[in-house]
Amino acid sequence: MERVPVLKIGDLLLVSIQVDMQDQTALALQEDLADRIVTTGCHGVIIDITGLDIVDSFVGRMLSSIASISRVLDAETVVVGMRPAVAITLVELGLSLDGIRTALNVELGMALLAESRADQTVELDLGFDLDGHSPATS
Amino acid sequence: MERVPVLKIGDLLLVSIQVDMQDQTALALQEDLADRIVTTGCHGVIIDITGLDIVDSFVGRMLSSIASISRVLDAETVVVGMRPAVAITLVELGLSLDGIRTALNVELGMALLAESRADQTVELDLGFDLDGHSPATS
Repeated sequence: MERVPVLKIGDLLLVSIQVDMQDQTALALQEDLADRIVTTGCHGVIIDITGLDIVDSFVGRMLSSIASISRVLDAETVVVGMRPAVAITLVELGLSLDGIRTALNVELGMALLAESRADQTVELDLGFDLDGHSPATS
Repeated sequence: MERVPVLKIGDLLLVSIQVDMQDQTALALQEDLADRIVTTGCHGVIIDITGLDIVDSFVGRMLSSIASISRVLDAETVVVGMRPAVAITLVELGLSLDGIRTALNVELGMALLAESRADQTVELDLGFDLDGHSPATS
């Protein structure tokens, strides 16, 4: 069985899907990714699908469940590198990849994740201030 | 024919090899990579082989020629993610991947490339000073 490697780059995990996904490969990828999120403490997952000519409903569901698993583990998922033809086929199949964020390429995906992480940090800071622990009130 | 995607991350190109390399795939990868080095002006190439269970003499030669092509185009190549079993097999086959730098994972590979790039910049600076164009002599 082929395994899709999960690469750690800074605070992100990168998965480049190139092989046809079978049940076993998809399950193994989900497990590997969940393990790596927990062991590395990464908060972002980028899934590159440049290598895929076809995204069928099975792969669509797999992407959705990877995104859901990551979310539960406090990591955000961005799917990058979708080809125009793949996007057209997806919509024709009635799959809209709900709940999955996308970006054109890995760099834009990294920027998106960094931005959304920064937003979360700002929210945390605000919560911290509202609790009355800010320097002004202490 | 399957094509191996070339991902641009900052000043680097990342290739994750997961499929069995055939003649056509290897040739296409070399062409794609050379094109991307020229169009992006990247100075580093990271080839991840975590996904490969076996590296035979064909793949070994392919890695060497990718490294040579990149060098001609002023980019350095680092092969990362080699499994212990692959390293053992390579040596048993008498292949030592001459002229190819390796690192344990993508992050260490990126650090290696950044370091070697910094060294080159220092050398350039020195050359500049020795020519008598330094602020002290002008």
